[in-house]
Amino acid sequence: MNENLRIVHKKTGNFLEDFGPGQILRHRGGKTVTDGLLTTFGDFSFATHPFSKNRRYAKAYGYRDLVCPPGLVMLVAFSQTVGDISENARANLEYINMRFGAPVYPGDTIEVETKILGVRPSSSRPDLGIVHVQSTARKNIGSSDEAIVLTFERKVQVFKGAADAKIEGFEIEPDAIDCELWLPKYGAKSDYVEIQHLGGDDGFFEDFEPGTLLAHSRGRTVTSEHIHLTGILDNTSQVHCNQHMIDLDPERYLGGQLVVFGGIPFALCLGISGPDIGDNTLGDVLYKTGRHTAPLAAGETVYASTEILAKRDHPERPDLGIVESRLYGHKFDRAEGADHDDAPPGYKRTKIFELDRDVIAKRRSHYTG
Amino acid sequence: MNENLRIVHKKTGNFLEDFGPGQILRHRGGKTVTDGLLTTFGDFSFATHPFSKNRRYAKAYGYRDLVCPPGLVMLVAFSQTVGDISENARANLEYINMRFGAPVYPGDTIEVETKILGVRPSSSRPDLGIVHVQSTARKNIGSSDEAIVLTFERKVQVFKGAADAKIEGFEIEPDAIDCELWLPKYGAKSDYVEIQHLGGDDGFFEDFEPGTLLAHSRGRTVTSEHIHLTGILDNTSQVHCNQHMIDLDPERYLGGQLVVFGGIPFALCLGISGPDIGDNTLGDVLYKTGRHTAPLAAGETVYASTEILAKRDHPERPDLGIVESRLYGHKFDRAEGADHDDAPPGYKRTKIFELDRDVIAKRRSHYTG
Amino acid sequence: MNENLRIVHKKTGNFLEDFGPGQILRHRGGKTVTDGLLTTFGDFSFATHPFSKNRRYAKAYGYRDLVCPPGLVMLVAFSQTVGDISENARANLEYINMRFGAPVYPGDTIEVETKILGVRPSSSRPDLGIVHVQSTARKNIGSSDEAIVLTFERKVQVFKGAADAKIEGFEIEPDAIDCELWLPKYGAKSDYVEIQHLGGDDGFFEDFEPGTLLAHSRGRTVTSEHIHLTGILDNTSQVHCNQHMIDLDPERYLGGQLVVFGGIPFALCLGISGPDIGDNTLGDVLYKTGRHTAPLAAGETVYASTEILAKRDHPERPDLGIVESRLYGHKFDRAEGADHDDAPPGYKRTKIFELDRDVIAKRRSHYTG
Repeated sequence: MNENLRIVHKKTGNFLEDFGPGQILRHRGGKTVTDGLLTTFGDFSFATHPFSKNRRYAKAYGYRDLVCPPGLVMLVAFSQTVGDISENARANLEYINMRFGAPVYPGDTIEVETKILGVRPSSSRPDLGIVHVQSTARKNIGSSDEAIVLTFERKVQVFKGAADAKIEGFEIEPDAIDCELWLPKYGAKSDYVEIQHLGGDDGFFEDFEPGTLLAHSRGRTVTSEHIHLTGILDNTSQVHCNQHMIDLDPERYLGGQLVVFGGIPFALCLGISGPDIGDNTLGDVLYKTGRHTAPLAAGETVYASTEILAKRDHPERPDLGIVESRLYGHKFDRAEGADHDDAPPGYKRTKIFELDRDVIAKRRSHYTG
Repeated sequence: MNENLRIVHKKTGNFLEDFGPGQILRHRGGKTVTDGLLTTFGDFSFATHPFSKNRRYAKAYGYRDLVCPPGLVMLVAFSQTVGDISENARANLEYINMRFGAPVYPGDTIEVETKILGVRPSSSRPDLGIVHVQSTARKNIGSSDEAIVLTFERKVQVFKGAADAKIEGFEIEPDAIDCELWLPKYGAKSDYVEIQHLGGDDGFFEDFEPGTLLAHSRGRTVTSEHIHLTGILDNTSQVHCNQHMIDLDPERYLGGQLVVFGGIPFALCLGISGPDIGDNTLGDVLYKTGRHTAPLAAGETVYASTEILAKRDHPERPDLGIVESRLYGHKFDRAEGADHDDAPPGYKRTKIFELDRDVIAKRRSHYTG
Repeated sequence: MNENLRIVHKKTGNFLEDFGPGQILRHRGGKTVTDGLLTTFGDFSFATHPFSKNRRYAKAYGYRDLVCPPGLVMLVAFSQTVGDISENARANLEYINMRFGAPVYPGDTIEVETKILGVRPSSSRPDLGIVHVQSTARKNIGSSDEAIVLTFERKVQVFKGAADAKIEGFEIEPDAIDCELWLPKYGAKSDYVEIQHLGGDDGFFEDFEPGTLLAHSRGRTVTSEHIHLTGILDNTSQVHCNQHMIDLDPERYLGGQLVVFGGIPFALCLGISGPDIGDNTLGDVLYKTGRHTAPLAAGETVYASTEILAKRDHPERPDLGIVESRLYGHKFDRAEGADHDDAPPGYKRTKIFELDRDVIAKRRSHYTG
């Protein structure tokens, strides 16, 4: 190699000092959701909703094709923002007010824009600060079926790029974004009854009892596959895929290991809940708030449970009802001599994720025979 | 979390005591076979048949599109039954009389029904019993090309849910299901000769010699990827993907490790055999019987061989012939001081799989120049 | 198993003594590039070019659909040759004169032919020799859009099959293959400006400065997933996926571990370079020469940098320019007591790959506002 080369250190992503109030970031790339992505991630996450598995079932309900599960829509949209927002993040802190809109079908192209709402330097750690953003994802821009598919705010802990960079805090109001879950019309009851077995026999509106905690039965061990699963979402954030970088400075990163992208337990918990709350809904309406409460590493097993908070009629649709729930993800860590009610002997239970989740559930009265 | 919550332990899958004679289970979900699934699993399994790789080759033979290999059709159909039949299984014991029907193309939607034929409590282990079922998979139900793609019986060892559940044994006759391998018509020889190089130069009807054992040349190491490959088939059976559950009770599960889903060596052995028997067939007709004879764990390498049992003319087609074979899968385990003819020094050979397999092979006389 | 069976050891692939001068190999299989393959591999390799991610962007530029990145086209074509050329190889030595042609879209079927140009026995190792080949990949043979997509030569180190086989060396001239990168016409500047954010803000013709070395910011740790990624390309070469074979004779194989298929760091380095050189090009024109300089194993992290060698106007297109570069891949190995300028303390830097790469870059003057 030529000894006289001038080395240019390319940077990707922004640092804390790069964000300004009201700044609009039109994220690079965009993503056409392919069959391949739907299969790989939708299935990995234990997504069991027949809208995402069985085209004849989805069409019988009035959708045009297989429907991407909310977990996948969230991940595709979220991942588009990583390059500009969290490439240099330490941790994603909170999801706020995530609302779903038009259905996403294989072949749809998602593009995302983000507005910077706020920056707050950390009091305890001078090299960090919190960034508050609002992102909106649209599909098929410029075509006749252009539509908003998702909008949300999030707060993320981001590193400063230069140690001496001066950070001025700010906070502005989020935009009001018109985004409501698209619902197919109600058709003929007999058509639904004919295919009701495909959705399973649980999780209808009448089945939910506020004040119960549904302990979902399945668990799933995450392996080093998380690296690839994160990459196929175009999320190149280094904490998930660069072991060498972690090796050089283990203290700087959570736990000193590769951090599993939070979207993975997020999607996995949604999937695990499916047979009990999900598979007989017409979708997720709103995630009021969500956060990761402990990191996850390869080798650990994810479990989930759902607390039913409340339910109410749908204002316009007699065939549907709204259920407010809280989804929890947990794992078990070894804890010698430990004896906890909520864990097997020798283990303690660690909560990794929680999400306030409103769903639109079908009523048995209208969808089953 | 609210301390007064009533915890509901959700169950998935049936236990031994849940099965009754003649019970029909219309399995939930169904599955639209996507490009993504065909690529991931069909390729992982070393499937080399150009019908599943090369669309122009498949169409030249009279198929409408790429054709899913028999291993994938079997896995998609089988996995649809897991939730209801073997979610709580200890081991899959035997495949019986598996017959292939209409071709499965990307975009086809597979749905499966199972009839319970028998239950037999275990004499040696009071917490187990054997369930005998018959499953039939159809594609594109309700459309003009609805057809049966696969039908088979299987026996599986299932756990009791309640230790004190009383199991009454029973056995009824299987249904007669009309299912025969669809064959494209014979076209113009010159068209086949033009593309014969794509199928390779072995495995034609004339090449098979009863009384030979074909030792296929390739091996394939299975890694922790098996967990994901199993998940994309919608097979959520916990023994394949929940390491924590295994850790809590290693004795209860085979080998105390995550068990690789048997469908993986099944598909892998079929794929490994392809260049020698498979790639120049028009498909697999019948698997009379098949079983797993030893478990497989991540890190182990799968090999295969095929015994040619017999061959005979096809009753109606002069361009084809039927070959009866037996496919064996094996691996090598370290065995200190061992010296076996059929293994390298220091290793012993362990059979993991066997399958009686009838194929319909093309004749050189009609397909090559 | 029948004790009187005659065992037939099936061979796959050719050995050094099987190659003759001018021999044409029409490779078996062929491959229809599916959505699934584009997603899995295109994304794994950090491919960030919006032509391969965002269908509306690709169509706005005049392509018919998502475009397969050059790394994927190269891998699909190369892998078709492995069965016949390098199934029994020890190492791939050099890529020579790789030129890209027509764009490859999902659904296109690639078939490859190879001509044997030369064989040279090794002086130092009697069981090895070098084979020199020329391969040409076409898409959609027999249809109205049949076209050459790639042509290249390569040299590979192949084992002898029989220890006593006598190898006569030879060398003939490569064919002149008409293959030039297809370029869409230049449209209306305002259309490009409207979507320029999707391509990012770097890597235009004007940005490149000969005599600089672009140190790309991302790294990527390769895991055991490499086995599956190699398999989905239909590359069944045993050194990548058969740990048992390696265990039996560690000295014979590079490093005694599973060797990561060279195509993986190849594609990964191209992807890593994307945001800095790639995402604002209309494609890669020519790889004059390329070679792997050190092996890669699971657990290692790949980095890349690009040296800008020269740039010049495009002879016909005022909106484009040609940039000559050299892409380097490297990793860091632990080296106790080491203190190198170009590595962190305690590590040494090892070059794993280099590739002379000419790209056609867009000019800011014509594509940005």
